[in-house]
Amino acid sequence: MSGSGSVRVLVDMDGVLADFEGALLRKYRERYPGEPFIELSERRGFLARDQYRQISPELGPKLSSVYESPGFFLDLKPIPGAIEAMKEMSNLKNTEMFLCTSPILQYEHCVQEKFLWVEKHLGAEFVQRLILTRDKTIVHADLLIDDKDSIKGVQASPSWEHILFTCCHNQHLQLQPPQRRLQSWADDWRAILDSKRRPN
Amino acid sequence: MSGSGSVRVLVDMDGVLADFEGALLRKYRERYPGEPFIELSERRGFLARDQYRQISPELGPKLSSVYESPGFFLDLKPIPGAIEAMKEMSNLKNTEMFLCTSPILQYEHCVQEKFLWVEKHLGAEFVQRLILTRDKTIVHADLLIDDKDSIKGVQASPSWEHILFTCCHNQHLQLQPPQRRLQSWADDWRAILDSKRRPN
Repeated sequence: MSGSGSVRVLVDMDGVLADFEGALLRKYRERYPGEPFIELSERRGFLARDQYRQISPELGPKLSSVYESPGFFLDLKPIPGAIEAMKEMSNLKNTEMFLCTSPILQYEHCVQEKFLWVEKHLGAEFVQRLILTRDKTIVHADLLIDDKDSIKGVQASPSWEHILFTCCHNQHLQLQPPQRRLQSWADDWRAILDSKRRPN
Repeated sequence: MSGSGSVRVLVDMDGVLADFEGALLRKYRERYPGEPFIELSERRGFLARDQYRQISPELGPKLSSVYESPGFFLDLKPIPGAIEAMKEMSNLKNTEMFLCTSPILQYEHCVQEKFLWVEKHLGAEFVQRLILTRDKTIVHADLLIDDKDSIKGVQASPSWEHILFTCCHNQHLQLQPPQRRLQSWADDWRAILDSKRRPN
């Protein structure tokens, strides 16, 4: 059905387009050089703070102080291949692409910097495709590409199929069929889009 | 069917919860005391800038400089009854309420200040119900309460019924049946919600 039907894709930012985990570890080690840290290969679970808390309770607030600092979200490096994939995806025929991201609870720098990041790396026209929401289940689409392993909200059965984007914290997870992964932006994301195209 | 089924409501911010037009006129007159202005009773069309441009082209950028200034969105006064209505609506049984707002293109102050406004006037728990999107047609709901007369996006037939919230710029419009208005927050918004409740 490739090319014969329309598909709408939501693409998450942190962990999918922007390297949140890499920056978090690097800046945490810079700020707290004497404290224990978790190598990316040892990360487990979506929230890094929860895993750091298990080492020692005071490491949780130390870690969150890093991503709550001004400039953290703006300075995130793009995930390899992400920018090129977004530009290609946005130019595909019969393809509606939106960026769909949840701001952190301490939103003060995060929300503005997410907009600035998109403009910086993708251009102003992509800012118009940016959706900020803490609940992604009510956004209507065919696909959601997201590194969070469990995405919940008010709608128990969202319209989209969740494609798990591989990230350090979820790479060990065994998915239940028919759940699917996108291993990286070098993986065949075009085939995943095509698999959801509605016939004309 | 009142109370017997569930309803999801999207509520716009500017012109519905926050008095954008009132602040715009007041601050424009303060900043440009010698320039012509349009009384709220004479406003026509969603974009004030377009109407000011018709008086004289240079008034467009002067007007937009007002709402692009830091503090403009944060300082907006609540529309009468809006805060009370939101608090009541959020406590109604079987009612899912989200705030759904489109940031202006010059987003730099706007996006952060919309979050701050919601926390200031409604409280931190409402921040979690805030959705920023330039395209509201892909958010799945039963109702969208919005003062913009024509709401377009990628989805030609949105899931929601648009209830036009009366504002200076749309009060003269004749709606085509079955289009409905909410005249103010003193109007019977509860009956509109009840009209969309699905039977259990």
